[in-house]
Amino acid sequence: MSAGKAVIGQSGGPTAVINRSLVGFIKEAVNHDFDEILGAKHGLAGMLGEDFVDLSNLSESQLYGIGKTPAAALGSVRQKPTDSDIEKLISIFEKQNIRNFFYIGGNDSAETANLVSEGAKNIGYEMKAFHIPKTIDNDLRETDHCPGYGSAARFVAHAFQGDDADNRSLGGIKINVLMGRHAGWLTAASTLGKSAEEDGPHLVYVPEKTFNIDTFLKEVKEVYDALGRCVIAISEGVHNEDGEYFLQTYANQTGSGLAGKTDSHGNIQLSGSGALGDTLTNIVSEYIEGARVRADTFGYLQRSFIADISQVDAEEAERVGQHAVIASKELDSGSVILKRQFSEKYHCDVEVVDLHKVAKHTKDMPEEFLDNTKPYVTNDFFEYAMPLTGGIEPKTQIFV
Amino acid sequence: MSAGKAVIGQSGGPTAVINRSLVGFIKEAVNHDFDEILGAKHGLAGMLGEDFVDLSNLSESQLYGIGKTPAAALGSVRQKPTDSDIEKLISIFEKQNIRNFFYIGGNDSAETANLVSEGAKNIGYEMKAFHIPKTIDNDLRETDHCPGYGSAARFVAHAFQGDDADNRSLGGIKINVLMGRHAGWLTAASTLGKSAEEDGPHLVYVPEKTFNIDTFLKEVKEVYDALGRCVIAISEGVHNEDGEYFLQTYANQTGSGLAGKTDSHGNIQLSGSGALGDTLTNIVSEYIEGARVRADTFGYLQRSFIADISQVDAEEAERVGQHAVIASKELDSGSVILKRQFSEKYHCDVEVVDLHKVAKHTKDMPEEFLDNTKPYVTNDFFEYAMPLTGGIEPKTQIFV
Repeated sequence: MSAGKAVIGQSGGPTAVINRSLVGFIKEAVNHDFDEILGAKHGLAGMLGEDFVDLSNLSESQLYGIGKTPAAALGSVRQKPTDSDIEKLISIFEKQNIRNFFYIGGNDSAETANLVSEGAKNIGYEMKAFHIPKTIDNDLRETDHCPGYGSAARFVAHAFQGDDADNRSLGGIKINVLMGRHAGWLTAASTLGKSAEEDGPHLVYVPEKTFNIDTFLKEVKEVYDALGRCVIAISEGVHNEDGEYFLQTYANQTGSGLAGKTDSHGNIQLSGSGALGDTLTNIVSEYIEGARVRADTFGYLQRSFIADISQVDAEEAERVGQHAVIASKELDSGSVILKRQFSEKYHCDVEVVDLHKVAKHTKDMPEEFLDNTKPYVTNDFFEYAMPLTGGIEPKTQIFV
Repeated sequence: MSAGKAVIGQSGGPTAVINRSLVGFIKEAVNHDFDEILGAKHGLAGMLGEDFVDLSNLSESQLYGIGKTPAAALGSVRQKPTDSDIEKLISIFEKQNIRNFFYIGGNDSAETANLVSEGAKNIGYEMKAFHIPKTIDNDLRETDHCPGYGSAARFVAHAFQGDDADNRSLGGIKINVLMGRHAGWLTAASTLGKSAEEDGPHLVYVPEKTFNIDTFLKEVKEVYDALGRCVIAISEGVHNEDGEYFLQTYANQTGSGLAGKTDSHGNIQLSGSGALGDTLTNIVSEYIEGARVRADTFGYLQRSFIADISQVDAEEAERVGQHAVIASKELDSGSVILKRQFSEKYHCDVEVVDLHKVAKHTKDMPEEFLDNTKPYVTNDFFEYAMPLTGGIEPKTQIFV
């Protein structure tokens, strides 16, 4: 039997290096005996609509250009397949003789690959199904870290270096809202550019810890009273002990109505809105009279900034894409992971684990990465995350 | 008479390269016969409080570190001196034998230098007073452009490259709010990374043109209907024909109260708030049903991002700082400007003009830089601005 065709799609929120995984996949795939190498436009949507492009004849310069451009070159999609979607998908695969399915994305994409794999098995259709990891949230299980995180972390660390210098120049309280509604990895990365104790961020609020506005205000005031300024990193997903997002809690308590945008179910839209930052600004301004308080929401720039990509991240992204193809020659299915080696110089190997181990669930920051006496990270986190960014040079600030 | 002491201060909103001007000043000043070279902490505030640091004994490595760190190493201030401030300042200068005043900042700083110069003349105190230009807003008169703008423009252009790729991946409408309440220079820079007609931003709204929400909505819908997506660059300072900021107009019309933060005079605070983006998101969502609409407010990152500085901008910032010292040996006062040469390769000379020509007033974008048929810039703007960024490499997007 021939190897059949291969198809690849990209899914979920873009990253700065997701296309490097696509390029890694293509560069390796052309060396194998696939009948065709297809890219599906907008992931699952393109597969179900048979909207494919041929990826086997791209020039070196096209591959270079795609690889350095953030976000999904094939287009992305947010779609969890239904049972009938999977059924339809596999019938399309049968018709087209697609026997190799690759999906770049987060835990939902691993789950999609898993469903494809199971669905094919159920009807006895022989095919391979592989998940290639990406997410700036760094919340996938099994892998040491996720391609996409290192570049986002680098951007955030650099953003805080400049913003801390800005805050030193003019004083006051600065609140920066970071992406990651369930896990604090990216918010924690705000600390990676610090070179002195008095550098910001001074306070780091992640969703792994319960958020309490009164405690928050006291902590902010304490730093502000001591330094005349305070830089805060706060995750968009901070919530109370019941898991209710702070903006929701605040709206309920004050009867003020929801600031910002809600979706069709009335849930708060966290990304693409400045509501959390603006609300906290107002609350802090009332609590600490006379203080200059400002907020920025870093938004989509965190996942798509073209000019500050971690080279470590970009190379690893390419390697996981390449390895998925190699693994497909020996295994039926799996999720590619990065495994950190205990060596003097940072290095990760690529390996494959079962799809169900990565599918569905996500990974929070472990306890040893979070300080249990204050809203801050530990040195263990620093050592874990710094190599992924490609290294952050310290800044200098000597006069004020 | 000895040259006396020299003092330098930094004022207003920081930029990514304002410290390169400080370094240029210091490197040149140490070659001259100043009795002392003083840095005033937080500009005028430090001068009035005699809070000085000695700048004459910094190591090469300290100067390098300061030069690559964004924002004001000496601290900044927003303070327009009163008559009595100027009187007090000059009496301090007399007491300390400070006979050389240098001030890095925008048009208000040029005005401060002018007031110092006039005040000293009035009482017959011999001293020099020079203004060194900086501002990301690029709104100073006389100079071809302002140090600080090139780096901010580079950041904005790169941010739009990534964000446009992100928007292509998932579709929908993306609104990005840019700094510059009176002039559209930075908003216009959003176009500099475009390599194809269909790249975003598709619509560019600057304060030089009157903003009308109904026209805006029609223009957005037209692009969205044609492309299935739309990326918008909009200045925080868009306003109606009476100069009233859009958020204010909207609050008045809808009786909804002001979204976002107001200052003690009840005026809208434009920076450090996501209110404009969020309000536009809600209005667009209502107008174009079913569309995915998101907004980001780029905020302080535009003026302080450490990892994407224009080398052209950084070198020019150093040169204007250096030239202020050189000019002070021949002239009594002035503002350093950049003058573009008509040469094949981009080059600016440094010159000096009278302080009053730069003080107080600002410079809007000229008509020839703005398209008069649609909300967009002209090729003339592109040719003007691109060299200042150090060049923006095109991105690649070939599948969707």
